Amino acid sequence: MNIDMIRAAAKRIEGHARRTPLLSSPFLDELAGKRIFLKAECLQHTGSFKFRGGWSAVSALTDNALKTGVIAYSSGNHAQGVALAAREHGAPAVIVMPQDAPAVKIENTKALGAEVVLYDRANGESREAIGIKIAQERNLTLIRPYDEPEVIAGQGTCGLEIAQDANALGITDADVLVCCGGGGLTSGIALAVEADAPGLKVHPCEPEGFDDVVRSLATGKIESNAQLTGSICDAIITPQAGDLTFPIMQRLCGAGHVVKDEECLRAMALAFERLRIVIEPGGAAALAAALFHDTSDTVIAVATGGNVDATMFKRALETL
Amino acid sequence: MNIDMIRAAAKRIEGHARRTPLLSSPFLDELAGKRIFLKAECLQHTGSFKFRGGWSAVSALTDNALKTGVIAYSSGNHAQGVALAAREHGAPAVIVMPQDAPAVKIENTKALGAEVVLYDRANGESREAIGIKIAQERNLTLIRPYDEPEVIAGQGTCGLEIAQDANALGITDADVLVCCGGGGLTSGIALAVEADAPGLKVHPCEPEGFDDVVRSLATGKIESNAQLTGSICDAIITPQAGDLTFPIMQRLCGAGHVVKDEECLRAMALAFERLRIVIEPGGAAALAAALFHDTSDTVIAVATGGNVDATMFKRALETL
Repeated sequence: MNIDMIRAAAKRIEGHARRTPLLSSPFLDELAGKRIFLKAECLQHTGSFKFRGGWSAVSALTDNALKTGVIAYSSGNHAQGVALAAREHGAPAVIVMPQDAPAVKIENTKALGAEVVLYDRANGESREAIGIKIAQERNLTLIRPYDEPEVIAGQGTCGLEIAQDANALGITDADVLVCCGGGGLTSGIALAVEADAPGLKVHPCEPEGFDDVVRSLATGKIESNAQLTGSICDAIITPQAGDLTFPIMQRLCGAGHVVKDEECLRAMALAFERLRIVIEPGGAAALAAALFHDTSDTVIAVATGGNVDATMFKRALETL
Repeated sequence: MNIDMIRAAAKRIEGHARRTPLLSSPFLDELAGKRIFLKAECLQHTGSFKFRGGWSAVSALTDNALKTGVIAYSSGNHAQGVALAAREHGAPAVIVMPQDAPAVKIENTKALGAEVVLYDRANGESREAIGIKIAQERNLTLIRPYDEPEVIAGQGTCGLEIAQDANALGITDADVLVCCGGGGLTSGIALAVEADAPGLKVHPCEPEGFDDVVRSLATGKIESNAQLTGSICDAIITPQAGDLTFPIMQRLCGAGHVVKDEECLRAMALAFERLRIVIEPGGAAALAAALFHDTSDTVIAVATGGNVDATMFKRALETL
């Protein structure tokens, strides 16, 4: 896993993924007492950065592998990213999703042409085991959500854009806050800014009670979450960091931030009011950390996704 | 008023206004039965395209004129655009606003450092008269919201970007739908695409009961609105088209669209769900026309602004 793979993914993605804007508001800066820039990946195709990794992985396959198809497991955003990338490559896609995933994410994945297989997250069924089993039975290529080199490379293209924009703005010293599940985006961005904007330091952000990566960085070994349900931040709840992603994060990242659900809802509401974008709870963890935790003068937060239903969004608006 | 003024404004604006993204969703396309692209000017600084015209006009002033300051009248978006542009040029700004403008727009204008003077829109007080009077008393430069060459030139920069993106996407034949108040943005975009993407045809979009420009294009002379209050689309309610903007629209625009409030609310909700952006009611008129009225195969709609309060936004979400 290295910067060359990220640059190669950037070439394959060009013209397919959106170059998302880096937003800011003098009102947010005043409220937070620091400069905040938000990388709006919620505006990416399928509503999250996951389209980058999906496109990167699918576009790296051989024609034969594309013909037989791909399989992915995902709580919803990787699902949609892979489904759309597969459809645009003419490849069949099977997506294994938890049955308690947000309905909008399951519906969207089906609407993008994928075959959806549901499993029960609460009863301890392993999505990896289901994915591997179906992949073998049907000769499909498994695209893991984060511990997959071409997926990390795709997510890293977001980091290349952050580095380019930071350099254009003359930002030489800033914290880059990333909503973190298994660490695919976090490690990809860390590799990209190491190469192109080495004054930036990446910090993973996780919800309270699901802070395995924050703890892993503190203890120096991969820690797990005690549970996998019960957070509004469904998009970034994973069992633990990956064997590929953790060493990268350990080498390059600063200490992580742990945010409360209420802080994520408040961040969603402020993004509505001041930046006019829609962020889902898990995608707002980094902005919440930027607003309420990080002590750097300049922060670049990544809003990783925007697939949220109206009920949850109204709950966020109640915090205004 | 010509394309050279727009290109000159684009040079002054570069690095100050945001290059807003052109968004799309396969779900919206399927729903509408056509390709829809949305120019997300709600992501512009101050939450609307008005920052372009404000910056263009303020940046064209002499140092002496900047020192004495500027004055503008506006229901809220031009107010914020001029206020921020003036602050960034170190110029004092007085903004005349209707007292029934959305509270968030009045608050934001004050927070951007402008002196706000309120007037009563319902009782027929003329904002133009108030603006001209204060301008004379205090030697301020009046920046009209639309019938002002440098303002039209600034709004036209949005059209240069639309033309560039359409050309990059290979779109040679499309309707460009623009939410229309006094016609500054509509005429600016029309001039820009005439020069750079002549296969695109601009159509103004207005709310039912406030469709003066649509009627003016039909009759061939400037028609007025019977009333100036009573629409949720406050951002695009103006007495009538301008003496500068109307002849441009008459020469270059196709027939306009009239949309219902309910259609704007539904367009806001679909933009939330499918594009993850926040649009205000008046800023959603063009998307509403794209979804429910226009019959072209390919439509580029401009989402002109996103300054909406939570109560109104929740009302839009109820339509999902």
